[in-house]
Amino acid sequence: MTVQTSSADFRRAIFLAGKVVGRRSAIPILSMIRCHANGSFEATGTDLDMTLTAKVAREPGADADFCMQAPQQVIAAIAAAGGKTVSMKTNGGKLRVSSDALDVTVDTVPSDDFPMEHLRPIQEQFSATFSAGDIAALARVAGAMSSEETRYYLNGVRLKSIGATTIQAQATDGHRLYLCDIQLPDAKGKLGDNVIIPRKAIRLLIELSKSAQNGVSLTIGTPAAANRLEGTAPEQPGASRLRFSFADRSAEVCFTSKLIDTSHYPDVERVIPAGGDKQALFKVADLRRALAAVSGHSREIRATKIAFGADGVATVSAAYLGIGLAASIKVACDHSARDLTIGFNGGYLSSILNAARGDEVLFTMTDLAAPVLVRNPADTAWTGVLMPMRVD
Amino acid sequence: MTVQTSSADFRRAIFLAGKVVGRRSAIPILSMIRCHANGSFEATGTDLDMTLTAKVAREPGADADFCMQAPQQVIAAIAAAGGKTVSMKTNGGKLRVSSDALDVTVDTVPSDDFPMEHLRPIQEQFSATFSAGDIAALARVAGAMSSEETRYYLNGVRLKSIGATTIQAQATDGHRLYLCDIQLPDAKGKLGDNVIIPRKAIRLLIELSKSAQNGVSLTIGTPAAANRLEGTAPEQPGASRLRFSFADRSAEVCFTSKLIDTSHYPDVERVIPAGGDKQALFKVADLRRALAAVSGHSREIRATKIAFGADGVATVSAAYLGIGLAASIKVACDHSARDLTIGFNGGYLSSILNAARGDEVLFTMTDLAAPVLVRNPADTAWTGVLMPMRVD
Repeated sequence: MTVQTSSADFRRAIFLAGKVVGRRSAIPILSMIRCHANGSFEATGTDLDMTLTAKVAREPGADADFCMQAPQQVIAAIAAAGGKTVSMKTNGGKLRVSSDALDVTVDTVPSDDFPMEHLRPIQEQFSATFSAGDIAALARVAGAMSSEETRYYLNGVRLKSIGATTIQAQATDGHRLYLCDIQLPDAKGKLGDNVIIPRKAIRLLIELSKSAQNGVSLTIGTPAAANRLEGTAPEQPGASRLRFSFADRSAEVCFTSKLIDTSHYPDVERVIPAGGDKQALFKVADLRRALAAVSGHSREIRATKIAFGADGVATVSAAYLGIGLAASIKVACDHSARDLTIGFNGGYLSSILNAARGDEVLFTMTDLAAPVLVRNPADTAWTGVLMPMRVD
Repeated sequence: MTVQTSSADFRRAIFLAGKVVGRRSAIPILSMIRCHANGSFEATGTDLDMTLTAKVAREPGADADFCMQAPQQVIAAIAAAGGKTVSMKTNGGKLRVSSDALDVTVDTVPSDDFPMEHLRPIQEQFSATFSAGDIAALARVAGAMSSEETRYYLNGVRLKSIGATTIQAQATDGHRLYLCDIQLPDAKGKLGDNVIIPRKAIRLLIELSKSAQNGVSLTIGTPAAANRLEGTAPEQPGASRLRFSFADRSAEVCFTSKLIDTSHYPDVERVIPAGGDKQALFKVADLRRALAAVSGHSREIRATKIAFGADGVATVSAAYLGIGLAASIKVACDHSARDLTIGFNGGYLSSILNAARGDEVLFTMTDLAAPVLVRNPADTAWTGVLMPMRVD
């Protein structure tokens, strides 16, 4: 059998499927891409937690089914050779991919061994279409995801229902908390209490959906019962799968991921400080320049101090004992926090400015030890909470 | 005392002097920049093997002399703050650098401790002006410098006199040899036999001189006798110092480096193969695309085979046993080497195409084990020699 596609389509499909494939896997088949050709050409990659299938057009021809070794290298070679079309042919454990004057031969194995569990239909509990703006809202909270292994349930973004067609995306690492409300007019079904999308899935959703043409449709649910295996583990309540699909210029993409299995996600409502009586309004560009000047050059933990002095001005400073350097800069700031000096992790401060967006940022503080509420006055959908840190 | 300069000039001078400062030095003063202000502002950095001084304009004011800690961090902070001018003031072991709303304080030490041995005048043996084209010629051979520690004398570019105003730049790592003739109409004096410019000095010369406005003046010689210290080591014959200086838009740069102290540099004339009877002429773009397709995706040693088959065509191929991949591509090639199959390190092949420049490259071969002569038919100044490697 021979399968023919355009070179660009082939490379796009393999590239997308390769996105979920781990760098080095002890199980050889997990470093391969499953290729399935019938009416179209489908490439599937998996790391057992996530699976991505990308479907592109093919020339009419016989069906085929094989797994391709070294997918990144194959598409790099094909891109470099510059041919217009690609033809694939398997022959006794070898796959030959030809494009113009180039022939690439790689190992192949039967696709029966490829783990396809994620491709089962999902018994839908919640579905909605995310626009580009809704994905951007996820990106605005993703910066606060934890990467700490002990509290694994913080390593993702939680989606929580806060109205019939409104959900809230939440992320926290214990030092900061970002929330963003998202309107989903076509939301259907009920979002359970413990829908936490893992970090890698969120990153991929944000990255890949940039090229989505008509929004991203998201489904949350449980895998539909197939030929049920008898097991001793109790049936799990609640959703355990996330699937999103979208179409870009040439490929139809379907991505499935496990959700983080937990009931420990903190009740973040209780963390949001109320009643802070000291406010400070910065121009984001000014504060960002000040942070870059006092701490942008360092890769160490950047303890950064903000001292509110006379009306209309704040002093941002940082000290690096290791290299004997201290820097301070004055920034215009409309504040009611005279004589307060408060310390932050400078990296978190930079991150929160990116997440808040907009031209201005408003800090609401109580004292130098209490959590600080961070808002963008022009945008009420997003909320940030930042813990101060003790600085000298 | 206060020293004032423009922010751009200050950052340029510190940046240039910082180029020779090592990342981590056990001797604290070697990580500092010596600043000297009299009629102008001079910044000097050294790693004991090389010293660079950059001189820029300053506002009139008193003389000053100090060493600045953490120079890269200071200029990063000043660049981020965005001020137009910089003023420096020392006060009891601290240097305060101010620019607009920013104040940076760093440790400073007296500049008496700064090693200034390289700044002594040079007793000139050879001098010449290198144009941008002459520097480019050095860059064309620099790719073949060794980085192996055992034959330290190969870790640089040798300059050899081959006529009254013509020198040849030579570099080899034992696997390949690049030569380039350079005309220097204003050359004065005699270039000794063992002028080998170390790798780091060549890289800096190529990088920094990109902004030189009227060529780079190069001096080779020995340090002039200062207050001579009595020593038991015998006086060394031959040159031991290289100095180059140039002016860019705002700074005057003077760079001094030790030469590699050796009399072991190989007589490369003997390595250039004569009498190869098999020739192959490639279009550089075609061969480069073929190399990218068969081996560009790999970071491993890229054993690449070229098989000369029927007239007018060659097959370039490579195999990667670890990932079970083999790739081959046909390339148009005007050759007289029918039935010869020869292997090369693919990385070296790519490098030699860059060094040869031009649209076409001519390989002159004897057999699969003898060194190959590589020429650019349109440019006789440059010569390359490449050792083949055994490929399965």
